[in-house]
Amino acid sequence: MDETRRLAEYLATSPPEDVPDDVRHEARRSILNYLGCALGGSREPAVDAAMRALGPYSGPATAAVLGRGERLDPLHASLMNGISSHVHDYDDTTPGNYIHPSSPVASALFAYASQSRITGGDFLHAFVLGFEAECRVGNAVFPAHYDAGWHITGTAGVFGAAAAIGRLRGIATPQMVWALGLAATQAAGLREMFGSMAKSFHPGRAAQNGYAAALLAEAGFTAGEHAIEAPRGFAAVQAARSDLSRVTAGLGVDYDLRVNTYKPFPCGIVNHPTIDGCIQLHDAHGLTAGRVRQVRLKVAPLVKDLCNKQRIGTGLEGKFSVYHGAAVGLVRGRAGLDEYTDQAVTDPEIRRIRESAVADADDSLTEDQARIAVELNDGAVIETFVEQSLGNLRKPMTDGQLEEKFRGQAVRALPEAQVEDAIGLCWRIDGLEDVGELVRAAVAGSAAAETVG
Amino acid sequence: MDETRRLAEYLATSPPEDVPDDVRHEARRSILNYLGCALGGSREPAVDAAMRALGPYSGPATAAVLGRGERLDPLHASLMNGISSHVHDYDDTTPGNYIHPSSPVASALFAYASQSRITGGDFLHAFVLGFEAECRVGNAVFPAHYDAGWHITGTAGVFGAAAAIGRLRGIATPQMVWALGLAATQAAGLREMFGSMAKSFHPGRAAQNGYAAALLAEAGFTAGEHAIEAPRGFAAVQAARSDLSRVTAGLGVDYDLRVNTYKPFPCGIVNHPTIDGCIQLHDAHGLTAGRVRQVRLKVAPLVKDLCNKQRIGTGLEGKFSVYHGAAVGLVRGRAGLDEYTDQAVTDPEIRRIRESAVADADDSLTEDQARIAVELNDGAVIETFVEQSLGNLRKPMTDGQLEEKFRGQAVRALPEAQVEDAIGLCWRIDGLEDVGELVRAAVAGSAAAETVG
Repeated sequence: MDETRRLAEYLATSPPEDVPDDVRHEARRSILNYLGCALGGSREPAVDAAMRALGPYSGPATAAVLGRGERLDPLHASLMNGISSHVHDYDDTTPGNYIHPSSPVASALFAYASQSRITGGDFLHAFVLGFEAECRVGNAVFPAHYDAGWHITGTAGVFGAAAAIGRLRGIATPQMVWALGLAATQAAGLREMFGSMAKSFHPGRAAQNGYAAALLAEAGFTAGEHAIEAPRGFAAVQAARSDLSRVTAGLGVDYDLRVNTYKPFPCGIVNHPTIDGCIQLHDAHGLTAGRVRQVRLKVAPLVKDLCNKQRIGTGLEGKFSVYHGAAVGLVRGRAGLDEYTDQAVTDPEIRRIRESAVADADDSLTEDQARIAVELNDGAVIETFVEQSLGNLRKPMTDGQLEEKFRGQAVRALPEAQVEDAIGLCWRIDGLEDVGELVRAAVAGSAAAETVG
Repeated sequence: MDETRRLAEYLATSPPEDVPDDVRHEARRSILNYLGCALGGSREPAVDAAMRALGPYSGPATAAVLGRGERLDPLHASLMNGISSHVHDYDDTTPGNYIHPSSPVASALFAYASQSRITGGDFLHAFVLGFEAECRVGNAVFPAHYDAGWHITGTAGVFGAAAAIGRLRGIATPQMVWALGLAATQAAGLREMFGSMAKSFHPGRAAQNGYAAALLAEAGFTAGEHAIEAPRGFAAVQAARSDLSRVTAGLGVDYDLRVNTYKPFPCGIVNHPTIDGCIQLHDAHGLTAGRVRQVRLKVAPLVKDLCNKQRIGTGLEGKFSVYHGAAVGLVRGRAGLDEYTDQAVTDPEIRRIRESAVADADDSLTEDQARIAVELNDGAVIETFVEQSLGNLRKPMTDGQLEEKFRGQAVRALPEAQVEDAIGLCWRIDGLEDVGELVRAAVAGSAAAETVG
């Protein structure tokens, strides 16, 4: 029973050259996707509110807030980056544990890299290790932990941030054990927050708290030595069932980055097959709102569990409405950020179609599948079955699709020329002598030196 | 099912004059006891380590750190105050829920009062409300929540800090609902950390996170509206069984402050009857180490569960060793801060007697009781039975005993004249026009204007 120590030893000592090439490339894809999401969300009201509330309490403003002009201390910058990158629910997901894995880790790493000179090689390695740490802890407690109501992105994410920052600080195994302990004892985030700003607060706070855990451990602040596996440790307290072998099985051989997925649509992933199918129907039949009478969906049971909101008034609520996803797919033939605004949700035609929809749980469907039937005003019924949804592991987004997704988000925060620079720098990140070059491409131009507080 | 809203409404709107006189006096006793603990712990290595790690990230240094010279932003000051006040495990306890209730609330309030001018009346009222909020949330989930492995001082404490700071900021009921939600979704702290510095981190982080929750809510950062009672809210996720009626039953009539208790000894409260009895045997028989051959204890089963450490090397571990408590009580006739140093724990005679001791769980004993038998070197056996331990609700510490306890701790941080000033100001706190007067008495004299970072 020494999973915490064995994981800590791996995090503190494994050499960068052990990371295989395919994992490196997936890390670049994850970082590109992460950064696009952080840019796309950086001007949202949740970030503005957090800046208003906490900006005045920031320490020396040495770190960039991605996509914005203000600078903060790196702990607060980690928080803001985390909120930005998750606020649209557009970031990546590891389908085996429902974690949005890049946000807690990369939010802390970008804050760190903006105030300390680090090489891209070290950045990428710390990212890989942080990603592994959080997924391994998450895998050990999934699904009982998630089913109980924990937002696993927050609870597992704090381990990832602690691991990544701890590695960059060069702490040794005993301090890494404490860093993981201080992460464990801050693991928080309730699914009850879904549909409010507090959901995106979770990866942000995980990034900030994990960063602080590494700093505290480095300074000799002690924690329990068996934080993950002890009878009153993370797994036992926060999951009715767990499999601790998953923390360490195949360390350095199996990488969860290989099973990372990227969302084509900025909403709960379980809605994706429905949206994918509705867009296909839109395209095949040239649908307009006026032609649609009623929508009937058959979906995996989890969809009803997570995304059953139908009478909604905000864009944020729309992300948790499979009905809204169906309506925008059918009417607009797309589901990008513009389809998850308050305006889109309150559009009368979208609303009418959303409220016409019926969704039945169907045990025979996987979470990648959906059956859609649309009754048109002329009485005709058009149907489709989605067997694999775009963005899942069997039908991944291509590098080019990820670039397109990046552009669609980044233009909300950056001038166009910076957008293309940032894309190029992400693809060659592990060759950079100073990740600060990428950070500078990812903040609002001339305002990059401003401070708040 | 609107416990969160009803609690929030009470916290946001109940008038100060509703607090009865006996509750006011208990609040003064709690504040005095809290402040003594914060002063007594303020120079401990855990606080030094946290200052080293996080001081450089502090925002504008507007707030005092109790007992020290440095100033920090009020969020970081809340954290440090929380660590200081709990590091000796000498702070108060509500026996019905095992919460150390003053630390999370008062740690935030003292930080707030050191950077914003507030009256003692407002301070005391916010303290009463914060205390109620955390105890009511804790009562609803106790004992299942604690038994599962949660350090309830951290998990419930964050609600108390959010409530107290939210009240001082004057936020209305809807924002208080969000503040409680942001508290709920940060509720963390594992009992696995007991015996390490991370235990005292819990009330500190609860104070800091609750403070931030109030600021965020005030700025319009939204959270789930049913954070306590929802199917994926705090009670359901973090306790196998709960009684939500306890959140609101008797609001404004019943006060948990009336059942607060103060520790005569700076260690786990379940050790107290054993220590009390051992001191009685020391005094009655003029015991010295050389006369003691072996110690036999009968204790409530929880003692074995919480404080069964016997082979120990640090003062911190001593707090969780009923055997160590017995040894110092028998040999020294007292168990103050000096009996919980590394030096005391490694004293050869103390160690010999500690390691001679046997403790058996006895179901017939309450947690206020202990049976002690000591075999002397001449073969005689002396015995005692403790029916009520000093400091419990039936045998509370007097105001004078609390002052003595305060003095014994405060001299570690303050000149003697300041100690007496601080005691006087605590007793008349609700008459102060500016609590800053008390704060100034509670920081290290001439160094009070220094900053770190």
